Amino acid sequence: MLENLKNKTVILASQSARRQELLKMIDVQFKVEYIPDLNEDYPKELDITEIPLFIAKQKQEAYKHLWSVEKNIVITADTIVSLKNKIIGKPTDKNEARKILKQLSDKTHLVVSGVSIKSNNKTSEFYSTTFVSFKPLSKKIIDYYVENFNTLDKAGAYGIQDWIGFTSINYIIGSYYNVMGLPIDKVFDNLKNF
Amino acid sequence: MLENLKNKTVILASQSARRQELLKMIDVQFKVEYIPDLNEDYPKELDITEIPLFIAKQKQEAYKHLWSVEKNIVITADTIVSLKNKIIGKPTDKNEARKILKQLSDKTHLVVSGVSIKSNNKTSEFYSTTFVSFKPLSKKIIDYYVENFNTLDKAGAYGIQDWIGFTSINYIIGSYYNVMGLPIDKVFDNLKNF
Repeated sequence: MLENLKNKTVILASQSARRQELLKMIDVQFKVEYIPDLNEDYPKELDITEIPLFIAKQKQEAYKHLWSVEKNIVITADTIVSLKNKIIGKPTDKNEARKILKQLSDKTHLVVSGVSIKSNNKTSEFYSTTFVSFKPLSKKIIDYYVENFNTLDKAGAYGIQDWIGFTSINYIIGSYYNVMGLPIDKVFDNLKNF
Repeated sequence: MLENLKNKTVILASQSARRQELLKMIDVQFKVEYIPDLNEDYPKELDITEIPLFIAKQKQEAYKHLWSVEKNIVITADTIVSLKNKIIGKPTDKNEARKILKQLSDKTHLVVSGVSIKSNNKTSEFYSTTFVSFKPLSKKIIDYYVENFNTLDKAGAYGIQDWIGFTSINYIIGSYYNVMGLPIDKVFDNLKNF
């Protein structure tokens, strides 16, 4: 469908298996290049909705050797989970995962993804917001999830496409795929311009 | 997780591959029994939100030989797509699929699923609603989708988990899985009581 990309090389600068899966679903050929441990600091005065895009743009600086080359297009992204205007990060261990899920229980939180797409002569930058409402999560539900699934690599300690997403989410407002880590409908629209 | 089902036989009375996939995701063992061409008539005075549950309950009558047997639990479901309070059915050919997608373009429609769960001594009945907002769909997008994907077995001529769902849906309000055909979080909660 995106014929304009036929002679281009799309590079997804993310190690997230979920982002790779989403980009495949819109029939884009791409390769993955990932530089670990990039700076994810941001100015304290930013609004929650501005933070992921700020980080995505900052990440692009590290990929300049790729997007400054003709025909290359680099995609960087960052996703945060926020509850009551406070950022909920990735848990460092199972105990913290349980604590985070207890916080999210019976509440609606916000997921924000920021995306930067860059070539040698074009830039697209955008973000997407989704509200996610969790049912009350019993200790049994939380323990089962944390013991049987990998929560440590996930902001907010959950994957919407995992067991807990099927059993325990009431509703969402926004893009489902944004919660998975990439607002793929906006990526599709913005790739048309490259 | 649903230990109460260990000595029960859960029967999904649906040939929908998507419903089977969703039921698997909550770790329920089940088998599929499907009687084709059941009556899907309903009283004209029903509200749109009441129709799928009415049909799901009506379908259960045809499975009485199953749920009246001790330890069996039968799940029936029906899903409708509705735009401006009018039901949009399954297309009969590609031409109709294109017409339906043109109707849904740049509008928000409603998806309603009704579910009946029945054993010899218990009944749970519920429904779920999700609003789905499509972006403007170009002729190119519609033609590509209808030519490359199966739209004929789908109410509203689209699958949210297909290419068009990734590229062309702005946002949803409600359960994503309900749009796939089964409000799996409610199924999980209601199965606890059996």
